Amino acid sequence: MNLPLGFRYSAVYAGIRKVRKPDLALIVSDGPAQAAAVFTTNRVQAAPVVVARRHLEETGGVARAALVNAGNANCATRTGERVALQTTKAAARRLGCRPAEVLPASTGVIGVELDARLIVNALPELAAGLAPDRFLDAADAILTTDLVRKTAFAEVGGVRLAGMTKGSGMIHPNMATTLGFVVTDAAVPARQLRAHLRAAVERSYNRLSVDGDMSTNDMLLVMANGASGKRVSREAFQKALDEVCQSLAKQIARDGEGAKKFVEIRVDGAASERAAAQIARCIANSPLVKTAIAGSDPNWGRILAAAGYSGVSFDPSHVDIFLQGVRVCRNGLAAPFDESGLKQALDRNEVEIHFVVRGGGTGSAVFWTCDLTHGYIDINASYRT
Amino acid sequence: MNLPLGFRYSAVYAGIRKVRKPDLALIVSDGPAQAAAVFTTNRVQAAPVVVARRHLEETGGVARAALVNAGNANCATRTGERVALQTTKAAARRLGCRPAEVLPASTGVIGVELDARLIVNALPELAAGLAPDRFLDAADAILTTDLVRKTAFAEVGGVRLAGMTKGSGMIHPNMATTLGFVVTDAAVPARQLRAHLRAAVERSYNRLSVDGDMSTNDMLLVMANGASGKRVSREAFQKALDEVCQSLAKQIARDGEGAKKFVEIRVDGAASERAAAQIARCIANSPLVKTAIAGSDPNWGRILAAAGYSGVSFDPSHVDIFLQGVRVCRNGLAAPFDESGLKQALDRNEVEIHFVVRGGGTGSAVFWTCDLTHGYIDINASYRT
Repeated sequence: MNLPLGFRYSAVYAGIRKVRKPDLALIVSDGPAQAAAVFTTNRVQAAPVVVARRHLEETGGVARAALVNAGNANCATRTGERVALQTTKAAARRLGCRPAEVLPASTGVIGVELDARLIVNALPELAAGLAPDRFLDAADAILTTDLVRKTAFAEVGGVRLAGMTKGSGMIHPNMATTLGFVVTDAAVPARQLRAHLRAAVERSYNRLSVDGDMSTNDMLLVMANGASGKRVSREAFQKALDEVCQSLAKQIARDGEGAKKFVEIRVDGAASERAAAQIARCIANSPLVKTAIAGSDPNWGRILAAAGYSGVSFDPSHVDIFLQGVRVCRNGLAAPFDESGLKQALDRNEVEIHFVVRGGGTGSAVFWTCDLTHGYIDINASYRT
Repeated sequence: MNLPLGFRYSAVYAGIRKVRKPDLALIVSDGPAQAAAVFTTNRVQAAPVVVARRHLEETGGVARAALVNAGNANCATRTGERVALQTTKAAARRLGCRPAEVLPASTGVIGVELDARLIVNALPELAAGLAPDRFLDAADAILTTDLVRKTAFAEVGGVRLAGMTKGSGMIHPNMATTLGFVVTDAAVPARQLRAHLRAAVERSYNRLSVDGDMSTNDMLLVMANGASGKRVSREAFQKALDEVCQSLAKQIARDGEGAKKFVEIRVDGAASERAAAQIARCIANSPLVKTAIAGSDPNWGRILAAAGYSGVSFDPSHVDIFLQGVRVCRNGLAAPFDESGLKQALDRNEVEIHFVVRGGGTGSAVFWTCDLTHGYIDINASYRT
């Protein structure tokens, strides 16, 4: 873990969540960093999303810090915007920067007022604890129902990237209950950073689904402070950012609520990448496919049926389907395979579904999800109470 | 139960499904009946869907019989079309009608060859058993994972309607793994019958979701043989057909795989009925909402979030949400309510979610679904094997 230069991190327990573990994180760049973010497209947007977007517009893409709390989404709250503004302002005062240079982010329960004082009162300890080596503490503090910490790192041409993310339910393509923060000491202008981020998200977070639900709070932020003093090519930087974002996205699928198995869906032979992704998305979102995977049942008929309602046009009689590399469907029909051998292979905690339209186009896509188990229901039947 | 005149029914065990209970049903009109049907919109369509549609086109909307098997979907099968043709032809010979007047329908596992001989060999017993009072036997024979028989009846102006349906998983708006057969002794020309059916389906089967999966085999057929000798107004017939279809659709939601609770979602104040239905559909399909209902958790934030990603534009600050008639969200914010009282109310097996955009348009819609429980996963983790 080689962290980017010029960033410091901190985390404390501010009393926002019931369980006594850190729920407030601060990520700070020593100098002004170029910043870009993508946000949820949900019609209902949490106050921190509204405020962070506005702050980025105000500064034209410059940020010093992200102030992140877990345990309360600060969404559908009477005081939401006031709380987001008040807390970022207090943090700015302590960091000696403009309020608009602090970006708020929240995750947790919706519709419960967030007490700004909890955050404001915790700020002295939070700021005092800032240190370059506390990246993992911050990564832990942003988790909610996650079972494991999610981080990813990359290095290219003397430039370092470090990413942390959270999320395991309410996960859907086009951003969902996930927060992600990537810091880098590369020097990349905000405008270019936005393009890099959009491209990276398209093939990482937007290729991820746990339950098809899209949240009100999603945000993925990249801050680039240039502290490395090194320059890398656009291609090299994009590749490194892709790597970090894809690693983070896959970790979310792997830690999907109740998930026992990580599922990678590859689609080849569609008319376009977009069409391939659309087929993959429908397979990934099908509860029938996901429960079959949970039960190690090579029920390829459900995969074919899910592709069939994707809205993408294809000829079913040209479709081959592979599970764990074993062909189970050929030309849209049952292919002979060793049933007990494949069942065993499906018992592994990594499952690959490969959907091929033979003689089709060159459109390919990869998509990640997980199986659907009792655990998902246990976690979500009483999350709020 | 006042059955329409001029129809006979039969059911036998043909050995298609493993469990020894009737799996082959025959519904016969004594004379030629006007017929209309709606079919799955899945890109992958089972052979019986293809053949039934073609038969209806050939006859211009005349049918004598429906030949229905459970236990095998005859979809993604090498011999699919041949089997559907061969069995309907054999049935036609026995009934003394044209092959195109027999409509095949299948439900069950996908991708396993259906042996035509099982059906052909069972036809003598099946035909010999035809009787006007065996409606319920046929209704039982078409079930798969259903726990209960699903029938509905109506009578208007001396005209009778009787409907049977099946389905509890892979249920999605725009038709899903469901078969439905409505018979009536009204005299309605095929063309008009199609319009009646389309209208009825729009507000019944298309307002129903169990798991968001759409099947390859769906079909809802109406046969009107005119045997009553009575004439009723279009409005009266439509109303009776609506009633039957809505009752059948609700019974499917009520019997959703693993469902403990029936959920009715009402949306008011949308810009149009279409927009209202779209919001209701997103709420109905949200696994997070459905698990919260299973856990009697009044987590209205998830309902608001699901509406928010419906693609429908609305102002969240004008939204009220009611659960079991109790307002839990007002103007998009938490409303005070008696938490323990509502939890008790949510323990009931009928749950009503009411989503209102205040000061919005006049678009309203009702949608039906069920909660998401361990049972769904148990049923679907090893359906095929």
